[in-house]
Amino acid sequence: MRRLAWPLRKDDTHKSRNGPNFFPLLHGGFVICSIQILFLISMRDQRTNIFWILRSYPSTIHLEGGFRCRCFELPYLQIPDEALPYCTKMKDEVILLDYWSSSYAMRVKIALAEKGVDYECLEENLPDKSPLLLQSNPIHRTVPTLVHNGKPICESLIIVSYIDEVWHDKFPLLPSDPHQKSQALFWADYIDKKIYSVARRILWGKGEDQKMANKELIEGLIKLEGELGNKRYFGGESVSFVDVALVPITCWFYTMETCGNFSIEAECPKLVSWAKRCVDERESIAKTLPHPQKLYDYYTDLLRRLDPK
Amino acid sequence: MRRLAWPLRKDDTHKSRNGPNFFPLLHGGFVICSIQILFLISMRDQRTNIFWILRSYPSTIHLEGGFRCRCFELPYLQIPDEALPYCTKMKDEVILLDYWSSSYAMRVKIALAEKGVDYECLEENLPDKSPLLLQSNPIHRTVPTLVHNGKPICESLIIVSYIDEVWHDKFPLLPSDPHQKSQALFWADYIDKKIYSVARRILWGKGEDQKMANKELIEGLIKLEGELGNKRYFGGESVSFVDVALVPITCWFYTMETCGNFSIEAECPKLVSWAKRCVDERESIAKTLPHPQKLYDYYTDLLRRLDPK
Repeated sequence: MRRLAWPLRKDDTHKSRNGPNFFPLLHGGFVICSIQILFLISMRDQRTNIFWILRSYPSTIHLEGGFRCRCFELPYLQIPDEALPYCTKMKDEVILLDYWSSSYAMRVKIALAEKGVDYECLEENLPDKSPLLLQSNPIHRTVPTLVHNGKPICESLIIVSYIDEVWHDKFPLLPSDPHQKSQALFWADYIDKKIYSVARRILWGKGEDQKMANKELIEGLIKLEGELGNKRYFGGESVSFVDVALVPITCWFYTMETCGNFSIEAECPKLVSWAKRCVDERESIAKTLPHPQKLYDYYTDLLRRLDPK
Repeated sequence: MRRLAWPLRKDDTHKSRNGPNFFPLLHGGFVICSIQILFLISMRDQRTNIFWILRSYPSTIHLEGGFRCRCFELPYLQIPDEALPYCTKMKDEVILLDYWSSSYAMRVKIALAEKGVDYECLEENLPDKSPLLLQSNPIHRTVPTLVHNGKPICESLIIVSYIDEVWHDKFPLLPSDPHQKSQALFWADYIDKKIYSVARRILWGKGEDQKMANKELIEGLIKLEGELGNKRYFGGESVSFVDVALVPITCWFYTMETCGNFSIEAECPKLVSWAKRCVDERESIAKTLPHPQKLYDYYTDLLRRLDPK
């Protein structure tokens, strides 16, 4: 049995490859090709009580051969193995709304690469954001935003969790044990609050607050170094959720050190070794992280343009 | 088959009810009462390859009847249904480190109440925190902290997710569909960033920033009102993760309105109706939220003591 998502929508009819009267019954990437198969699935699926659902959603859909059938909405449906050959595998449509220097967006790119998910990467023009971004992420209007089969997911850590859950067969990022998972989520949240937001103050802050942020960054990194301990990665022997959460900010270390006139390596040598190991050993990370010098040049150029004196 | 946690520890021997030679083989709340049952489970559990694990952890444990057996660590073990009658149900030990006025802690109390989990609530003295809090939450040292069978979980939203996953049979809070779950997590994160942290600035901030925070709170609540729409709860017909995340701050509305001289009900009438509905219809919420006047008195008293003029 496969547990698959069910993104059935009334306006999907025009997308059918089999003519306007065929409604593509989508099961998270599968198209159910005939009403017979639909009923085979329905009858087998006693747990979700599908006939009750069939009766309770009264919109009507048109099927191949002039059949009519009541439309229903159901987040999940069990497809029995014997029905799978009759279901056509559809390609997932995955779009990432990106900006190359965003460490938040890099998290998503690393996760997608580790999962082997093909996706379209659309670079945003931040002063003039795309209609797709404004429509998919109306609340924050930020990158990264992922659009999976037309559905938007926002906020980088939530996106990485989503990717881990949807493409769970390959390269798990979060542990399945609830306590271990809570620990990984705790450290990822810590990284957001005590590293990423502090990095922002180092790069764009001023005066006393900027100096204080330098100190807070080192304090935060020292705590993370303690959590890393003697492990190769935060996940132990392999890259995990916490590694994916933290590693993208490390390509900004050079810029932060140069601005703040301090050395992260002197304070946190083990953490810097870990960051190098991530880049050396994981192609997903090496290919995603821009060169530190490129980020530094971009940053100084931006500063000059914002404050031309 | 039941999937159960395995908190086996070497120093557990002394806790046995069956004499010092019996090692309580714990499976997340179950005690395995004989080595025969252990092997029944082991032999059935081909997926976790238990014999390999038995061989690879060389510490020795003593079993009832003089048996000796190698000790092993394993986060999860499948217990076949026919073995369950031979396993004694153990009571979970759940401790909440709490402070009565903390809206973050109220989230956890509502979730535990909805799940029907018995727990011990230990009120912290915030100026002199308990050793258990300092040891369980060494990074943030904040309430709420949950300690479940000796294992700490920190940060309120992470705790509520954990509770939802561990006690998943009753009153689900997060949807199982990955996309719907990502939306719930998005709004809970929004509530943390745009409501709770802004509320803190209204209560403890000063001057211009405090005035700005009043405005930001209303803006945030209006967006949440849009998300609520015409639904009874954020979760639709029943209380969900987003409701549990938001409702505890509403008992502070009266204090915030009085300090900031503005009316939340005038700006967000639907949201205030929703908050009333939560208290009227859910005993878990009515019993958890302190009376707004009590919080106001506590707040004004605290302000007087912090700034006695």
